[in-house]
Formats: sequence, structure tokens, C-alpha cells
Amino acid sequence: MSSEGSATAAGAGRGEPVRVGLLGHGTVGSAFAKLIEDRAPAIASATGRPVEVSGVLTTSRGKFEEVLAGADVIVELMGGTDTAREYVLAALAAGKPVVTANKQLLAQHGAELFEAAGKAGVQLRFEAAVAGVVPVIRVVQESFGAVEFNKVFGIVNGTTNFILSEMASTGAPYEEVLARAQELGYAEADPTDDVNGADAAAKMAILARLAFHTPVDFDQVKFEGIESVQPDDLAYAKELGLSLKLLGVAERFEDGITVRVFPCFLYPGHPLSPIEGPFNAVMVQAPEITEVTMSGPGAGGIETASAVLGDLVSVISGDAPVHQAKNDLPILSDVESSFYLHLEVADEPGVLAQVAKMLSDSGISVKSVVQKGMGNDARLVMVVHRCSETLFMDAVAQIAELGSLRSSPRFIRVIEEEF
Amino acid sequence: MSSEGSATAAGAGRGEPVRVGLLGHGTVGSAFAKLIEDRAPAIASATGRPVEVSGVLTTSRGKFEEVLAGADVIVELMGGTDTAREYVLAALAAGKPVVTANKQLLAQHGAELFEAAGKAGVQLRFEAAVAGVVPVIRVVQESFGAVEFNKVFGIVNGTTNFILSEMASTGAPYEEVLARAQELGYAEADPTDDVNGADAAAKMAILARLAFHTPVDFDQVKFEGIESVQPDDLAYAKELGLSLKLLGVAERFEDGITVRVFPCFLYPGHPLSPIEGPFNAVMVQAPEITEVTMSGPGAGGIETASAVLGDLVSVISGDAPVHQAKNDLPILSDVESSFYLHLEVADEPGVLAQVAKMLSDSGISVKSVVQKGMGNDARLVMVVHRCSETLFMDAVAQIAELGSLRSSPRFIRVIEEEF
Repeated sequence: MSSEGSATAAGAGRGEPVRVGLLGHGTVGSAFAKLIEDRAPAIASATGRPVEVSGVLTTSRGKFEEVLAGADVIVELMGGTDTAREYVLAALAAGKPVVTANKQLLAQHGAELFEAAGKAGVQLRFEAAVAGVVPVIRVVQESFGAVEFNKVFGIVNGTTNFILSEMASTGAPYEEVLARAQELGYAEADPTDDVNGADAAAKMAILARLAFHTPVDFDQVKFEGIESVQPDDLAYAKELGLSLKLLGVAERFEDGITVRVFPCFLYPGHPLSPIEGPFNAVMVQAPEITEVTMSGPGAGGIETASAVLGDLVSVISGDAPVHQAKNDLPILSDVESSFYLHLEVADEPGVLAQVAKMLSDSGISVKSVVQKGMGNDARLVMVVHRCSETLFMDAVAQIAELGSLRSSPRFIRVIEEEF
Repeated sequence: MSSEGSATAAGAGRGEPVRVGLLGHGTVGSAFAKLIEDRAPAIASATGRPVEVSGVLTTSRGKFEEVLAGADVIVELMGGTDTAREYVLAALAAGKPVVTANKQLLAQHGAELFEAAGKAGVQLRFEAAVAGVVPVIRVVQESFGAVEFNKVFGIVNGTTNFILSEMASTGAPYEEVLARAQELGYAEADPTDDVNGADAAAKMAILARLAFHTPVDFDQVKFEGIESVQPDDLAYAKELGLSLKLLGVAERFEDGITVRVFPCFLYPGHPLSPIEGPFNAVMVQAPEITEVTMSGPGAGGIETASAVLGDLVSVISGDAPVHQAKNDLPILSDVESSFYLHLEVADEPGVLAQVAKMLSDSGISVKSVVQKGMGNDARLVMVVHRCSETLFMDAVAQIAELGSLRSSPRFIRVIEEEF
């Protein structure tokens, strides 16, 4: 079944371009078309074949039948569940693999679409439908294909996570923060499906189906949104040491499963509590893997397009690539770092000034200093800003020569906040 | 090339058992053999074929030639780089796909092994060689197969991360914590390769090769270990707001790449700073994906065996599985949760007692309470321990009837610390 799929995707054979029929040319569709062009050499190198967009269907341009006939693979980025369903079923029936980012389509018509793909023996991939660029679909289906999960849960809607993070940090009310999210492009003009939990529910239906090998439809997921969260809930939460997230939770019990979406407080130390802003994160738990957490940007045109491209590359490759080194980049020796520098020195006047001058003469600037006396000696600990490692080592070698030093200098790299 | 690989793995065809030749039967090898048995139905369901161990080679048992001849796939869990290299090359040359967890083998002989796999047109998979159960190899090679990474970095050695976490939280010196790690099984009797950074360097050589499509050998990776870290470095770090990690960093610059391993401070808020104990975490960065972080248990017999099994399932499937619902689990309605409960009440004596009694009568126990007056009214905010959601909703409905209530009760779920 699977090899037929790749045979179809491979079309006329290795070396020939793979023809991609693109349905939809909105934010994601156009980002995807541009990405395919920009990454053409990398795609050809990863799959062994060049890729070209052979046809585009928009509301004002193109005919579906023609786009389908001229394509080896269909990429559905038009959204909606009626026409999109019809086109995807037609593509599968014609033996063409499909890549889609359409979560409502999968959540509402998953059973039918998976059956059609199985019958035709072609791939249906949909990484971009859940958690943006975070590769949770592939990991659940492939890396952990034989794992029996206890629980799959996480933050799967970036809009609401942005709103909750902003409310917590600014104390501003929901309506005000929503308006700001819309200005910044993190929320749509009509944010209903995001803020009421429906978007997250669709994603959890898809995840639960894959994790538990059980049919789960969108209308079986109970969901609550964040519309009624008050600024003082967040203020009290701070007092109780909690952070608020909209969680999707799919869980397996002795007698069945639950799939739900609800706003929820997390204690600090929970792996999901540091996930702020428009990011997504998903955790999967099972005895043989303990727990694995994945996080990254939830959506955005280029990130979604990138997830779609990953699927397209897999459809074309049909199989895991056998790695072959293709570049031959030089391996560099000097790089820049920030450093922590620890010195034990005689507790006498002028040592700090001396060290600071040696650093500054080398063009190295000090970010923070802690000095502590202990009898006749003192410890001088500082963090310096990013500089050439060679330059820093040379400066430390000079400092090591100072008569006031009680032991060899110690240093450790520091990853700067901006990172 | 790829379809030949799956054809070979498929051996005598669908339905027939896939015969696995197992090289090595130590901690990971025996955990893997047991996992294959325990997960037999899930494997058969994911791949369409049952899997059986057809032969085992240990130092005292079995002949390699016989194990190879009787197997469709070779799983190499013997370790070492001499005999393991010879056997893996022989298996690939015989057209048999290989799954291995052997990081030094890949890091030192990667070029030769990848070439052999490419020539034979069979899969060589090695997810378990890097970051344990964290599926970083698959994600870098497949999800992001056409992505040009800027940087791939992380905590790829669980032993050292455990030691550094313990040193930071207890203030104990390196030698003492290392001894404790050995007792707990987080460090081997001879911990040299872990604590001096060599283990992490081997993993970074593999990751850098895949991320940058450039040949990187183990001896090209500069590495430093954690042997010389002093308790007072960690004490000062705390003062400066930093946490210490052993990082592996592979980075791309205009003119080449660097691959290094070194102990390093992170500012709070860095996605890797909350990774504590024997966990691993890897971040990948590129313009089209911003950054994706993955974390999970770094090693352990069962986790490594599980990563090996994921690879085996992929080798047998040859291709992405077309999802088909196989279970038909009931979807439950009532579950247990902990809750935050927010009440606006008249500021008169006895209200807290009244509410507490109603909860306790329902068998719900209170974990923490904050009460604040405001004029004639007060806000009563509490967190209750895990209880049936139905029970809690009923209790809240009763509380809502109280005459002293100024507005409808509000509640939000809380994920408990133990989670």
C-alpha cells in the first residue's frame, strides 16, 4: 500500500520534476509557493527530484479538474470543509497523495478521508493542521507508532496563549488584550473559533484519534474558551503561584478516553508553564517514553508553509532518506561568546580596576560583577559581554599572570538573554 | 532506492512475520526484546505485519552469519566501534536494513556507513543514538528535511545534566554528586565519556552532519566536560540568576560551521534552563521555523529500546502509515480535576466556614485559600484538591444559592504539581 503511494508521488520517475497542484493562495498558500521556490535546491537534494507548482486554484482563478490532472501531488491550503472535502476526496480517489493544513477538515471528516486514502493506497499528510511547525503528528504517528499513550496534551492555540500571557503580564482586561492581538496579527478579525476553544478542540480531535487509534470527531470534544477569564483571576493566580493556559487534554482511562479543552492553571515547574506568547507545546506520555515535550511557533504563514513543505518532502521521498553529506562546509575554530569569569585575588585595592582595565584594553566589556572578601583574599566574579573566544582566552592568560591572583582563573560560557 | 529498502524489510510479503536479528543483549537489548513482545499487537497493527526476534548474538551465544542469514532487519545494540562496524557493514551489504543505538559508531564511521546504506539502497536508522527517546533525528531529517538550519543545540547528556542539577540544588561537590548519580544508575561505573563531554560530542557530530549536510566526525568536535565545575561556581551563578548546563552547539556561520560541547550558564527564561535531572532537550533554529524545542528522558533501557522500536516500525512500514482507527474506545464524560474557585461574598462572619462545610460535605478538600476584604464585600479564592468534576460542579451549584454571594461563582481547573 505504502509503496504504491510513493510510486504515485514519484510520477514519471527520479529526476523528473514533481508537479504540485496548489489549492488556495491566501497567506499560507502564497508563503508556501514562495518557500518552494526559495528552497528548490534543498528540496531537490532531499528528495532526489525538483519540485514545481504545476497549477494553482483560487476562488477567481483555475479549474480544479485541470489542476488535479496536471499534478502528481495536491497541496490543500484553501480552508473550509465543503469544497475542500470534495477536492481532497477527488484527489485521493485519483491516486494522488494529499498534503493539507486544514484542521477542521480532518477533525470533521477524518474517518472518511483516512478511509479514502487507505483505499487508494496514497499518503494523506497533515502536520500543519496541529501545532503549526511543532512536528507532533509525525512524532505521534511515526516515532511513537507502536507506543500506547496514556495522555497527549498541550497548548495548541497560539492566539489564546498570547492573550493569556499578555493579560498575566499587563493586568489588562480580555477585550483590550484581544484588540492588541488583532493589531499584531496574532488574532483574526473574527477570533470566535480561537477564543471559544473550537480551534483547539479540532486539533485535539485529530491528535486523540492518532494517539488512541480511536475515531474521535470534533463534536465529541468538550471545549471551553477564555472569553470569561477576568484580570483578577490572573492576579490571584500570581498570588497562588499559578499560570493560566488554555489546555487541550486527551487522556486514556481504564474504560475509555476523554478529549477536552479548557482554561487551566499550572503550577510553576510544569513543563508547559514557561510557554508564553503565540507558542504551542504538546506533551505525550506513556510508560516506555515517560514524557516527551515539543514546543515551537503555533502558526504564522511561513511556519505553517514550512510544516506543509516537510510533509511534501516526505510524500515525495516516500521513505526515510538515506543520509548523504551534500555540503562540505569548513569547520570554524573561533566564535563569539559571553563568559563568566571567576578569580581568587588578594583583597587589596586596585585589583578590580586592574582586571577591568586588562579586559577593556582587549575590547571586552563587563556586564555584571560580584566581589566578596574572605580574610586576606577576595573572590571576583564577573560576566562579560559577547566577544571573540580567542580574544577572551588571551585576556585571561594575561590576567593569570597578575601577582595578586591566588589561583588560576576559571571561566564558563554564558548564553546571553537575547539568544 | 527507498522502495527497495522497504521491499527488503518486507521480505516475504505482508502478513508474514518480520524477522529481527538482534546483536547485543545487555540492558537495552533485553529491554528491546521484552518491548517487542509486550507491544506485539500494536506493532502488527502499525506495520501490518507481526515482528519476531529470529536470532540473538551475544559475546557467549550465537553466530553473526547465522543471525544475519535468518533476519530481515538487523538491530545493533552491542556497542563498541570495531565489531559493530564490521557487522553493520555486512548487514547493509547483504541488503538488510539496520537500526542502531550506537552513537560512537555513527560519529566515528558515519561517512562509511551512510555510503554503504546508500549503495545498498536500504535504510539505516539511529534515533536512539541521540537524545534517547526525544525524536530529534527523525525531526531533523524528515519533518525539516528541506530546512536550512542556523543552529542545532541542546542538552544531550543526561548524566551530566543530573550531576549539574544536583550540585545546584544541594551545593554538594562534584565527586559526591557523581557518586550519588552512580548509585542511582544515572552514571556508569566508568563515567569518563559522559563527564568529559565525549558522549555529547559524538551526538553533536551526528546531529551536525544531518542538520548541515556536511561530513562531521567525532574528532572534529571540540569538547569540554564538567569535571572542574566547583560548587561555588553554582553558588555565584545563583546570585547572578544563572543555571549551569553542559551544552552541545552546532552552528552555521557565513563561512562554515562550528560543533562544540561546553559547560555553560543560561539566563532564566531560556527554554533550556528548566531542563533538570537526567533529561535531554534539543532546540533547532531556522528562519522558516523560528525555533522548535524537544525534550524528554535522555536514556534508560526502556526509553532507548522504545526509540529503537520506533525506528524498526518505520523500517518495516517503509512509508508513512495511512491512519486507520483500530480501537473503538468509549469517550468518557466525568473525570477528576483540581479547581480554583473564585467567590465574591458579603464580608460577614461565617461565610468562609459555610463554603468550606459545603465543600467538605461533598467530599471535596481545600488546598489553599486567599480571602480579601473590599468594603462590604470580600473575595474568597481557593484551590481544591483533585475531585470528580461532576461532584465539584454540584457543590458549586449549591454554593451559588448562598444568600451571601454577590455574583456567580467562577472556577478554573488546576493541573496539580504531581502531574
